[in-house]
Amino acid sequence: MAKVLIVYYSESGNTAKMAQLVEEGAKKAGADVTLKKVQDVNVDDLLGYDALIVGSPTYYGQMAAEIKKMFDESVKFHGKLEGKVGAAFTSAANIGGGNETTIQGILECMLIHGMIVQGNHQGDHYGPVSIGAPDERVEKQCGILGERTAQLADKIK
Amino acid sequence: MAKVLIVYYSESGNTAKMAQLVEEGAKKAGADVTLKKVQDVNVDDLLGYDALIVGSPTYYGQMAAEIKKMFDESVKFHGKLEGKVGAAFTSAANIGGGNETTIQGILECMLIHGMIVQGNHQGDHYGPVSIGAPDERVEKQCGILGERTAQLADKIK
Amino acid sequence: MAKVLIVYYSESGNTAKMAQLVEEGAKKAGADVTLKKVQDVNVDDLLGYDALIVGSPTYYGQMAAEIKKMFDESVKFHGKLEGKVGAAFTSAANIGGGNETTIQGILECMLIHGMIVQGNHQGDHYGPVSIGAPDERVEKQCGILGERTAQLADKIK
Amino acid sequence: MAKVLIVYYSESGNTAKMAQLVEEGAKKAGADVTLKKVQDVNVDDLLGYDALIVGSPTYYGQMAAEIKKMFDESVKFHGKLEGKVGAAFTSAANIGGGNETTIQGILECMLIHGMIVQGNHQGDHYGPVSIGAPDERVEKQCGILGERTAQLADKIK
Repeated sequence: MAKVLIVYYSESGNTAKMAQLVEEGAKKAGADVTLKKVQDVNVDDLLGYDALIVGSPTYYGQMAAEIKKMFDESVKFHGKLEGKVGAAFTSAANIGGGNETTIQGILECMLIHGMIVQGNHQGDHYGPVSIGAPDERVEKQCGILGERTAQLADKIK
Repeated sequence: MAKVLIVYYSESGNTAKMAQLVEEGAKKAGADVTLKKVQDVNVDDLLGYDALIVGSPTYYGQMAAEIKKMFDESVKFHGKLEGKVGAAFTSAANIGGGNETTIQGILECMLIHGMIVQGNHQGDHYGPVSIGAPDERVEKQCGILGERTAQLADKIK
Repeated sequence: MAKVLIVYYSESGNTAKMAQLVEEGAKKAGADVTLKKVQDVNVDDLLGYDALIVGSPTYYGQMAAEIKKMFDESVKFHGKLEGKVGAAFTSAANIGGGNETTIQGILECMLIHGMIVQGNHQGDHYGPVSIGAPDERVEKQCGILGERTAQLADKIK
Repeated sequence: MAKVLIVYYSESGNTAKMAQLVEEGAKKAGADVTLKKVQDVNVDDLLGYDALIVGSPTYYGQMAAEIKKMFDESVKFHGKLEGKVGAAFTSAANIGGGNETTIQGILECMLIHGMIVQGNHQGDHYGPVSIGAPDERVEKQCGILGERTAQLADKIK
């Protein structure tokens, strides 16, 4: 049973709602899931999991500074996340408003840690994107992300 | 009066429709506009304009090979597009389906040519994105892109 | 024993040299490796492997049109590469010359196919980058990429 | 005479050194230049300039959280930077280590503000990248960035 950590930052509640949907998906796949606001994360917490899923609002086409701060601090154990599974999701105000670049920015942090990421050939390919509050499409995409990430972590660990 | 070239590739007709909407916007701003399918472009044509606007469907998160081929061939006059204005738009199947990375890929080709690009603080920030056939939102965004690009080219030339 | 396909495009010979170095690394890890110029690839070939490693020169910050054409054609079996392992490398003329965006462009194609990619916490994080002809650093990075990709494919298949 | 603000974050001193080289270039072009550590920037300061040049170390393939915080806070006057000129530079530990994605991340923030950015057809196309301490190549690239950005701001204002 893979241990999955979901970390998010949310002001409006949209990213928080997505985080819960991702959690449900990961639990459905049988994972042992922890859901945390980034404000409640001690960076050393990241070491205890098989997979890390990070959600952020789209702020100027990149993750919120609060999320970036966590990654910057993680340099102290650089190399220790090698081979773990990573995934990302975001909520944004507009289509074409910087949501994919936000997700790619998070995935880049993960790749630089030596982590493993997977796309999805259906739907939101890099990771779920909500335009405003999560609708039915987003609910489905978030569930799938949680499920797939947990399954991949299970296979790899 | 700025000379603007709009080049596009389209299979389904969605990107072609966007190209016409961009053309209307550029004409509204008083530009002398040429609209061409990439198949009808001789790469030397790119030299005769103040601005270049490129539209492509989103194919695997990047511009269609037909558009990339045009940029690859443009290496023969590398440096000659320096200081011209560039912009991009795309049509895609899904939100989060690779549309922003397609636009960024086109803008990167332009930056490497030394061209000048501008974002928009409203709407589709990097360039217009249509999910399926252009709807009212996309019509507006395409018109604005044409208009703004023509105005910037006029200011800079 | 994982089956690994390395596909590359090369004009100057630099990317071809990198491809051979990646091949050596993958063989060292015990993989069954096939090395092909993109011109010799029938797109259906991609289906018969556990891992796909793609190399391209950096042309205007993105993969060569010849490589993009292969990905565009692969849409005919979209979904069939789901869960396979992907990786990328590039040769470029300059530091800061578009090499990382070229690699990211290739990885984005792979993610949209539902493939799995891994970064490296040491060295060239997204994939090996050669500035001009491969030097000792690049030789090492290419070998490591081949080895790691084969190992991951072995674990996942 | 264009007013240019250079904002940077630096731990090792490499990005600080680059900032001074950019400043020299902008002054050579006749600009009125202000150089500030991000810690000393009140976000409202950004409003008083024709051009904004931002430098950051490459931390996990994206700008430092301190720089991102400044952009996040700038949302309070969103729209007011529309039409100003932007540029970026970074120092990194490795070739292929996330330097281009860091610069692109900064330029994306600027595009979303409606700002204008220009590439360079020579050298470091998206913006100067230093691998370790700035060498002669980087000194030249930084000077050119400062000069070109000041000239473009002068033309546009």
